[in-house]
Amino acid sequence: MTYAAAGVSIDAGDRMVGMIQSHMRRTHGPRVIGAHGGFAGCFRLDFNEQLFKRNYRDPVLVSCTDGVGTKVKIAADLKTYDTVGQDLVAMSVNDLVVQGAEPLFFLDYLAVHKLYEEQATAMVKGVSDGCCLAGCALLGGETAEMPDVYTPGEFDMAGFAVGVCELGKLVTGERAEPGDVILGLASSGVHSNGYSLVRRIVADCGLSLSLCYPELDDERTLGEVLLTPTRIYAKSVVAVLRRYRVKQVVTAMAHITGGGLPGNVPRVLGSHLNARIRRAAWPVPNVFGFLGRHGAVEQEEMDRVFNMGIGYVMAVRPHFAESVAHQLTRAGEQVYTLGKIVRGTGKVVFV
Amino acid sequence: MTYAAAGVSIDAGDRMVGMIQSHMRRTHGPRVIGAHGGFAGCFRLDFNEQLFKRNYRDPVLVSCTDGVGTKVKIAADLKTYDTVGQDLVAMSVNDLVVQGAEPLFFLDYLAVHKLYEEQATAMVKGVSDGCCLAGCALLGGETAEMPDVYTPGEFDMAGFAVGVCELGKLVTGERAEPGDVILGLASSGVHSNGYSLVRRIVADCGLSLSLCYPELDDERTLGEVLLTPTRIYAKSVVAVLRRYRVKQVVTAMAHITGGGLPGNVPRVLGSHLNARIRRAAWPVPNVFGFLGRHGAVEQEEMDRVFNMGIGYVMAVRPHFAESVAHQLTRAGEQVYTLGKIVRGTGKVVFV
Repeated sequence: MTYAAAGVSIDAGDRMVGMIQSHMRRTHGPRVIGAHGGFAGCFRLDFNEQLFKRNYRDPVLVSCTDGVGTKVKIAADLKTYDTVGQDLVAMSVNDLVVQGAEPLFFLDYLAVHKLYEEQATAMVKGVSDGCCLAGCALLGGETAEMPDVYTPGEFDMAGFAVGVCELGKLVTGERAEPGDVILGLASSGVHSNGYSLVRRIVADCGLSLSLCYPELDDERTLGEVLLTPTRIYAKSVVAVLRRYRVKQVVTAMAHITGGGLPGNVPRVLGSHLNARIRRAAWPVPNVFGFLGRHGAVEQEEMDRVFNMGIGYVMAVRPHFAESVAHQLTRAGEQVYTLGKIVRGTGKVVFV
Repeated sequence: MTYAAAGVSIDAGDRMVGMIQSHMRRTHGPRVIGAHGGFAGCFRLDFNEQLFKRNYRDPVLVSCTDGVGTKVKIAADLKTYDTVGQDLVAMSVNDLVVQGAEPLFFLDYLAVHKLYEEQATAMVKGVSDGCCLAGCALLGGETAEMPDVYTPGEFDMAGFAVGVCELGKLVTGERAEPGDVILGLASSGVHSNGYSLVRRIVADCGLSLSLCYPELDDERTLGEVLLTPTRIYAKSVVAVLRRYRVKQVVTAMAHITGGGLPGNVPRVLGSHLNARIRRAAWPVPNVFGFLGRHGAVEQEEMDRVFNMGIGYVMAVRPHFAESVAHQLTRAGEQVYTLGKIVRGTGKVVFV
């Protein structure tokens, strides 16, 4: 008996390692240290000793992990493998910059029923695209072939991101005050949360992923709309934090994932503050109305499951709100002034 | 329609977050910075600014990711959820110390068909046990409930470790020379590689995971033997590296995973060196003979798939081999002198 006969192809794995090299390498700057067939990836904290000493007195590593939930099911159904990698990077690096960190590197874990090199390489290409958008290095990864855990055609992926922040520059929400202005950054769509509900609505209401629906007002099919990659806010957010490094005008941030605005904004607000948000402040993308109507999902449930068009939130000292919004806009973000921080009990209040 | 009706229980997730807090907290030292309901974990690179400056002039972050392969299937079959977490930590931190790094923190991704809090908490407890053994903090994690990707009862897990090493102290194998002595550290069994072959042998040969086999010479059932957690070498290896921080007598290391000794030792040797290893230098644990005989697996295939009793390898300057072996033994390792480095072509030669 052999390992290959047991369903694991070491050769396919080796071939894939070759195919993904270029996708990894294009994300590597001078801080990534050569491989030596290494057991682990190596990343210098700064380009050289002098710069490092100047930039960091007491560095804090910031790290998080996430998957993309059952969005992988839609990708598998549509046999579209090169976009969910960006979602994977987005889910982790957007969480990371919330703390004020600069993303440094990313690693991915990819698990499949059977290793088809082209599919797996497409997935890694998506991860590599995401790393370029986030400005971080794809430092390593693992591809696991597990025929008995995943059914044919299925896969899962997990991502890990590491960033760094000087101790005194961490954004914790503790400095948020009544009067701070809440800016909202537009999402690119459903992002990577709520897909179990999305898929249930699609199945129960007889919707088809391969059709275009006039209500969506989009040339793309429903499946393509649902697979739109999660927007990566890292570069624009890091640029703002860097510009106001001394004044620290950004007092709290939140990445809007599962739980929506009401679930995520309070995570960084103290229990003595509310976020008062005007519903009319931003346009809700068609895809949410479409899903809500077809699925007869109540407004409150929609708010709790989906981002509803706002993917990232930033509280800013009132005097600087306009200039921060301007800088974010120039960086390519669609920015809305959602409302402001008021005294309260740690809640989001919609007005 | 609601999210809960679509199979995702936010309440179960919230309850679990509460249950795993203590498992995370016991791994936290003073370098872990408080949560604030944070979106990401925060870890100071050193305890304070003064220490940091003394210890690091040019720090390199070392990072890797891995899963435990289809060992999760045996855990699921035996409904034993509290051991594979240690395997998960072992797979990553053993890779990490190979580069000379001190493990700092770990994050886990856990994906299940349905979230049973007790099961998932047991898994996290295992991860926490592993982190204690490795001396690193469990800084964060994600538990994903994905009813359509995993079949009932199945789960998967991925781990991610970050360590740090001063640039000049990285162990790359480049300083290995003919004459360096090769020490082998005993494995605790099959560790976490080759389980697709193990399970095929069990199935095809009509073996039972719930029976004791005299050939194993073990009071435990075959399933229990196969679930023995992967040994974590991090603390003993880090202690040796610290002790010889200046002399740097350890010239190359390898974690013996998929590929066995012939696949992993050459990863760190230059193409001008061989590792000459005496087969008689260490006892092969019974479980390997048992699997090989029942499965009629050829010796070469066994060597390529399994660790055969040696889980970690260290090349040491000859003059220091004895004292390093002594220190490892006192740290609790079973150490064997396997052979030595000789001129060659980047291969393991068994004699």
